[in-house]
Amino acid sequence: MANSELRKDPVVDRWVIIATERSKRPHANRTTTVSGRDEGCPFCAGCEGMTPPEVLAYRDPSSNPNAPGWRVRVVPNKYPALDSVAELFQPNDSPYVALNGIGAHEVIIESPKHCLSMADLGEEQVEDVLRAYRSRLIVLQKDQRWKSVLIYKNEGSAAGATLEHVHSQILALPIVPREIDQEWRVLIAHYEATERCLYCEMVDKERADGRRIILESAAFIAFCPFASRFPFEICLMAKEHSPGFDAVANEELPQLACMLRQSLQRLAGIVDAPLNYVIHSAPLRDLKREHYHWHLEILPRISKIAGFELASGYYINTVAPEVAAQQLRDVAL
Amino acid sequence: MANSELRKDPVVDRWVIIATERSKRPHANRTTTVSGRDEGCPFCAGCEGMTPPEVLAYRDPSSNPNAPGWRVRVVPNKYPALDSVAELFQPNDSPYVALNGIGAHEVIIESPKHCLSMADLGEEQVEDVLRAYRSRLIVLQKDQRWKSVLIYKNEGSAAGATLEHVHSQILALPIVPREIDQEWRVLIAHYEATERCLYCEMVDKERADGRRIILESAAFIAFCPFASRFPFEICLMAKEHSPGFDAVANEELPQLACMLRQSLQRLAGIVDAPLNYVIHSAPLRDLKREHYHWHLEILPRISKIAGFELASGYYINTVAPEVAAQQLRDVAL
Repeated sequence: MANSELRKDPVVDRWVIIATERSKRPHANRTTTVSGRDEGCPFCAGCEGMTPPEVLAYRDPSSNPNAPGWRVRVVPNKYPALDSVAELFQPNDSPYVALNGIGAHEVIIESPKHCLSMADLGEEQVEDVLRAYRSRLIVLQKDQRWKSVLIYKNEGSAAGATLEHVHSQILALPIVPREIDQEWRVLIAHYEATERCLYCEMVDKERADGRRIILESAAFIAFCPFASRFPFEICLMAKEHSPGFDAVANEELPQLACMLRQSLQRLAGIVDAPLNYVIHSAPLRDLKREHYHWHLEILPRISKIAGFELASGYYINTVAPEVAAQQLRDVAL
Repeated sequence: MANSELRKDPVVDRWVIIATERSKRPHANRTTTVSGRDEGCPFCAGCEGMTPPEVLAYRDPSSNPNAPGWRVRVVPNKYPALDSVAELFQPNDSPYVALNGIGAHEVIIESPKHCLSMADLGEEQVEDVLRAYRSRLIVLQKDQRWKSVLIYKNEGSAAGATLEHVHSQILALPIVPREIDQEWRVLIAHYEATERCLYCEMVDKERADGRRIILESAAFIAFCPFASRFPFEICLMAKEHSPGFDAVANEELPQLACMLRQSLQRLAGIVDAPLNYVIHSAPLRDLKREHYHWHLEILPRISKIAGFELASGYYINTVAPEVAAQQLRDVAL
């Protein structure tokens, strides 16, 4: 039981998950081994009993659930920010708005080995991870309580990782988060005014310009966004309009895996930085979800989020995206 | 010359300052001394020549400008994020929106000694700092190019400080930042619907409830916000409606200094954490600025800003504000 609470700021659309159980997470900094098994790591093969039972695993057909033999494994978060077994409840405490903290919080363990970075995984391994994302997204969006699903990675302590073993997280929420909601509203308004998706226009613009593009495949492009928040920020986007990550086709997964892995490797060739990546996918419960255009943002945590960023919601970036893209293209792999 | 550029995200209202000159800042981690002068620190008394000439200083009447004898000193930022000597210019590159990077960027040096934390300053010293904020805000808001002024502090490397000597920053911007704009819009709409300020209602609610209040004086309260983003987050707010920090009265400054210093000391009594504080003050150029209600937010950086926060714009907080307020009240000073 998470026993958490969702609280909305009384003025701005900013919800906070008050999740006191998560303060019980172990934060020990263990000794790092480059690969192989790490003593005491709950995500290494052979330690399956240290996590809740798996909800999905890609594994050797001869192996048993919750035992070694898997390549990618998805388990409920042992210290969930939100609780998945309750109904939504809204106490009244005007002017404050709150909800009980319901949601689903899962962990994708991306390798059976104690690997520290997704850039070090093989291409098929990255493809398995993306397939696991899609599979869990499709399952979670059937639950009518969830309005949005976030998929994100924290790699490195400064990027918020509490365990170093390569992993990512899925969070299903009973609300549509501010960042996605704002994008979505603008995309709807732009479509209603012009009958065009603003992200599709941006993809056209980037392809015509070329200065910020890092990689391009049949279905996807990777580019440094015009208004990148962080040095060497990278966005992966489908070239054709595509609302949700759930609709990525089987034949597109290898392309996307190749592009994600190469983007991370090129980044690692420039700087050894902690990083987050986040997948923004369409909200789940609205006909207008078709106006969304999913994308994956890689956010290297080279600069600090400081007072200016917290006060303004804006960012200061000391590397121009055109320069970053040039450097990323120039990395020899 | 900053030679920077302001770029707007093509979809959401998120501007980024592309400031490549700031990458030239020295980031050396020098040896820390608890007080007194630190060799090589440009903010210590005796090193006035290492900064641009002062724009304000509170100093011994017998001392000379840009020489020792000051208590608080304000100088232009040597590596400004924005350039103060240009006119606003907007290139056309649809669908992208940009502005040349104009603005004013100043540093408030809060002590002539190499002190590392505002919590260690005396009450009169904190009062001088607040008076310097007000004085610079009043000067900067006369420049018709600026639409908003941000005042903020980065204390500790993880909170974004590149120099450890106690200081804060002022940034005047040609746009109203997203966070302030969103607050302001909601405050205007609420006033037009109810003829009440939503922050004034919140102050009433907090005083009636009491569980989240830490300190109260004749003019101000300090409380842990209902939807605190960070553990032990503290908000200082005027009890009477007050749009801008420029209007804080002389007789209120000592009260506010006492409350800010005590809040920081109480926080330091619980945890030795990096922190930011930010002053949200009314936008400068609009009759409706009267609907704003200024406040100061103290944001202890105990938890990391991770993938979830960046993906959603929401936060996970592991300490309930009611518990945080109780602990802050219980600190023996």
